[in-house]
Parts: sequence; C-alpha cells; structure tokens
Amino acid sequence: MPLPERELIARIRRTAKTRGAAVRLGIGDDCAILRPPAGHEVLLTTDFSLEGVHFRRAWHPPESVGHRCLARGLSDIAAMGGHPLAAFLSLALPADIPQRWPDRFFSGLMALADEFSLTLAGGDVAQSLSGVLADIVVIGSAPTGKAVLRSGARPADLIYVTGELGASVAALEELRSGKKLPPRSRPRHFYPLPRIEIGKALRGKASAMIDTSDGLSTDLAHICEESRVGAVIYADALPRARGASLDFALHGGEDYELLFTAPAARRIPPFVAGVRLNRIGEIVRGGGVSLLDDRGRRMPLASRGWQHFDRSN
Amino acid sequence: MPLPERELIARIRRTAKTRGAAVRLGIGDDCAILRPPAGHEVLLTTDFSLEGVHFRRAWHPPESVGHRCLARGLSDIAAMGGHPLAAFLSLALPADIPQRWPDRFFSGLMALADEFSLTLAGGDVAQSLSGVLADIVVIGSAPTGKAVLRSGARPADLIYVTGELGASVAALEELRSGKKLPPRSRPRHFYPLPRIEIGKALRGKASAMIDTSDGLSTDLAHICEESRVGAVIYADALPRARGASLDFALHGGEDYELLFTAPAARRIPPFVAGVRLNRIGEIVRGGGVSLLDDRGRRMPLASRGWQHFDRSN
Repeated sequence: MPLPERELIARIRRTAKTRGAAVRLGIGDDCAILRPPAGHEVLLTTDFSLEGVHFRRAWHPPESVGHRCLARGLSDIAAMGGHPLAAFLSLALPADIPQRWPDRFFSGLMALADEFSLTLAGGDVAQSLSGVLADIVVIGSAPTGKAVLRSGARPADLIYVTGELGASVAALEELRSGKKLPPRSRPRHFYPLPRIEIGKALRGKASAMIDTSDGLSTDLAHICEESRVGAVIYADALPRARGASLDFALHGGEDYELLFTAPAARRIPPFVAGVRLNRIGEIVRGGGVSLLDDRGRRMPLASRGWQHFDRSN
Repeated sequence: MPLPERELIARIRRTAKTRGAAVRLGIGDDCAILRPPAGHEVLLTTDFSLEGVHFRRAWHPPESVGHRCLARGLSDIAAMGGHPLAAFLSLALPADIPQRWPDRFFSGLMALADEFSLTLAGGDVAQSLSGVLADIVVIGSAPTGKAVLRSGARPADLIYVTGELGASVAALEELRSGKKLPPRSRPRHFYPLPRIEIGKALRGKASAMIDTSDGLSTDLAHICEESRVGAVIYADALPRARGASLDFALHGGEDYELLFTAPAARRIPPFVAGVRLNRIGEIVRGGGVSLLDDRGRRMPLASRGWQHFDRSN
C-alpha cells in the first residue's frame, strides 16, 4: 500500500495546527476536546465530498477538491451566522492513488482553513475500495440564541441573496461539454469563498438564512417549509453570474451564497465585506415558491435544484 | 432512484428524536445547535464504516452494521470517560440497494442510541457509486479538565483491560472460513456494547485510557507513544474470550473494551457495571511494549493490530 493509514495520520498531524483557545486537544487521542467560547452555543455540520458524485479527479485539481470539501462545511456555519472553530476530516483513499494527490488535497484544504484560522482537530482515515471519499465536520459557535435559523421568515419579509448566482453550475456545464478550464478562471466553482463575515454581520438582522448549496429554488423552498410561508422571486432582480442563464441562477447549486430574509423595516446594507446584497423577492402567506417574470406573470417555481453531475450522465 | 435523498432525510427525521437539553436544534437546518452542560468540555470523534473495509453486506445484517457504526463512536467517548450527547450520521447508499436495508440499518443504529438516550441530530446523505459508506460523528462531554487522555500513563502504573479480548476477530475468522454465524451467537462481534458507564466510573481513577478498536498491541503502543513510556504485558493474565487464541487477544481489534492505566496505589474495583476489570501488566520507563510469557521470558510485542478483513483476502 503506497499510502498507509499511519503515514496519512502523521501527515495530518504535521499539517494540522492547533490554534485558538477553542481546541484544547486536537489529533492524537480517542476524541478531540473543545472549549467553545463562554456564552456561546455550538454549531455542527457534516458534508460528504465523494469522487464521481461531488467532484471528478479528471476535472478538479486536488487543491480544489480539498478547498471545496472544507468550503461546504464553512458555508453551513456562515448560514447560521456562526464563527468557525475547528474542522474534522474523515478521508478514505484508494490504494493506488499517487502520493501527490493527498498532499495537494491537504494543501488546498489547509489554505482555506488558514484564511479563517481554523484548526484541523481530528478525523478518521481508511482505505477506500473505490474512489476518494471525504466527509468534513465543521464546528462553530454563535452567541446563545443568536444563530439564524431557516424557520424565522415571516410574511412581508424581504428576500435577499449575496453575490451572484449560477457561476458554479455554468462552469460545470463547460466541464461537462469537454472544455478544459483553468481553475483560477472560474473561482466561484473551483474555489468558492464561504460568506462567514457576511453571515456574522447578518446576526440580529436576518430573520431566516440558508446557503445556496442545492440551488436557489430548492434552498428557498427549505426556508418556506421550515418557516411555513411562501415566497415570490422577481426574475429580473436575480443577480446572474457572467455566462449563467436564468435556469442556472434559479436552480444551479454550489454557489455557496447566502439566501436570507429580513423584515422590510430592517436596514440591510447594500454591501458587506465588498460583496453586494441583492433584494430578490418577498415572503408571502401560504406555501411554495413562485417566480414573477419581467412581464408580471407569476408562475410556480419547482424545487428542481441541480442534480449532482454524476446523475445525468 | 429507488431511495432518493429526500426520502432518506425524511426517514432520518422520523427516526431521530431530540432528547435532552444538550440538543437545541437537530435535523432540518444548516447546522445542529448544541448546548453542552455548564462546566463541561465538548468531546468529538468521527469514524468511518465502509462496506468491504469495515463490514460486508454478505456477513453482517444491516442492524449489526448500524449498531457497529454507532458503537465505534460511542466507544471513543467511553475511552475519554465522557458522556455521549448526540450523533451525526453521513450516509451514502448505492442506487440499487433494497429499501429494507437502510430501514434495518437505522433500526440497529437507533436501538443502540436509545440505550444511551442519544439524539441523532444531523448528518448528510448522498448517493454512493460503490457500496454503503457511513461516517459517524459522536459528540459527548466531560467535566472540564476531567477527560482521561492517552498521555497520562506514568512508570509503575498498572495496566488494566475490561471484559475479554479477541472475541470479535475470532468471529471474523469464522466468517472468513465460510461459516454462517447467527449474529446473536457472537454478540461481541455483531453487537459490541460500548463501555460508557465504566469509562465514566474511571474518571479520576485512570491515568490514561484508550479503547481496543485496533487491537491491544496497537492500542497500548498508542498510550506508550503519547505518554512517552513503555509497557509490559503478562501473557497469562490476558482475559481471552472463548475461542480466542493468544494472538487474537493480543492483536485482534474491534473488541471495544477499555484499556487503561492507574497508579498502583489507586484502588480499582474488580467489577464495574457487571464487567470484570483485569490487571494485565505494568508501565515501565523507556518505550515500546513487551510481552512476559508464562515461563518468565520477555520479548518485544510488535504493534501488529489486526488488518481489516478486506486487506488479507
């Protein structure tokens, strides 16, 4: 076996740095020990990154796979208005993977961790019989009672989304068509930046929040279900990324923007941390999501989401 | 797809019950929200259960796979002297798996969770391109500063192990030989019981502790490395399970017993929660693990551990 578990653990230990008072004990025991800040609650999210389902080795350089793996978890922390404290990585590798691959994967993952002074505090390693399998756990915290839930949207609240929509799936479609993409040319697909600062700034302002990991139509439906309300989206207000069709903006996933609601009377700044916050619709009584097109016609918007790319080919 | 992610999530929501004040928000948002008891630290462990690596569908009934998946994480909490609070399950299933399989998997997992009043508070679901992939996260807590680490063993400490050793790998060898085993006939392999109560009772008594997931020789070497000490094991004091050779007792993994050290002056009860605590050796200066055989000969004991069964056939 070119990469025994022992060596992988040793590499993780070398790579991981214990930073911040929140991690009392990191890698090297049966459990990690965490001390969340006083007066805070603990947030926890787990996300798979499976080869052939969430990424392809032929399309995604290892640094991008490591970055996206951690970004998925960080984005969930952002969507609660939380501050990230530590990450745990479970990683299973096929026996025949070139040794460079995990090195570059960790380099991408840790570069993003460094941006948030995040500790890689543990995890698990195993051999995989088929493909690279990763599962990331991110632990964060928010002041007690201040985390922003999906369930707080109320009729007449306004709906906002950060940044632009559809960039990630637009790049995916280019990859699917056989085009070679330099990763740095499509950063929102290969190196999405979780909106941690914006999420924290929206604590106490947003009434409900979610990240656009499954696509606007699906993620907004989650807010509506949990809040027991409906929503209307204005088609011509959607901030579409360059190259993104209306369909991509409505249903494309993995943009990792923040989708949130706020009472109309609450002042939402036009920019936070250099990123535009766009008003795109409003919450209504009832249920379901509708789209209001540029000719004033209102039609139901199905929660199509975007099927992970493995399913349709 | 016979088992869409949506339905799997719905099933998890129906199955999971939020119990105890520690879980403020469970499944159904971007993150779970946890409130650990005041004056406690948070313990966290993650463990893979991969088909073909940690179990085989032909050998292990789904209830056993679910039980063992959670038992692995609970045993890590036990090894710190912790109390379990919540679990998070990431589960990827092949598209062609019969619907009964995940039902029975959850039934086995939740039966064990019920024994510890544990909440299944979140996780992730995905489609797997090859085999069942599970990753369990267990969160626990221990009074601040009281968790038992691997690093606290000191020369002249005595070494103890709970229960019996080698039962799990003995059953595995029977399975490997083609024998059909009724799962209830080999409970320590199919339905191991994590030693949570014993772990908590040993807080303040044990100087170092680990669970025997990789096998005594490997797990004791972990204590020695982290504590910078050596160890001598008495061959004739090892509590061997019925049908377990000395090799099975020394190197067989997945028994999920507790291996711990304590100063010689500290009284260790002979039984806790109906389980015998066996004195099996002592900590010495230096490094490495030795075996003292019944003729008084001392020889180095290699950390062979037990290779997961997929590797050797």
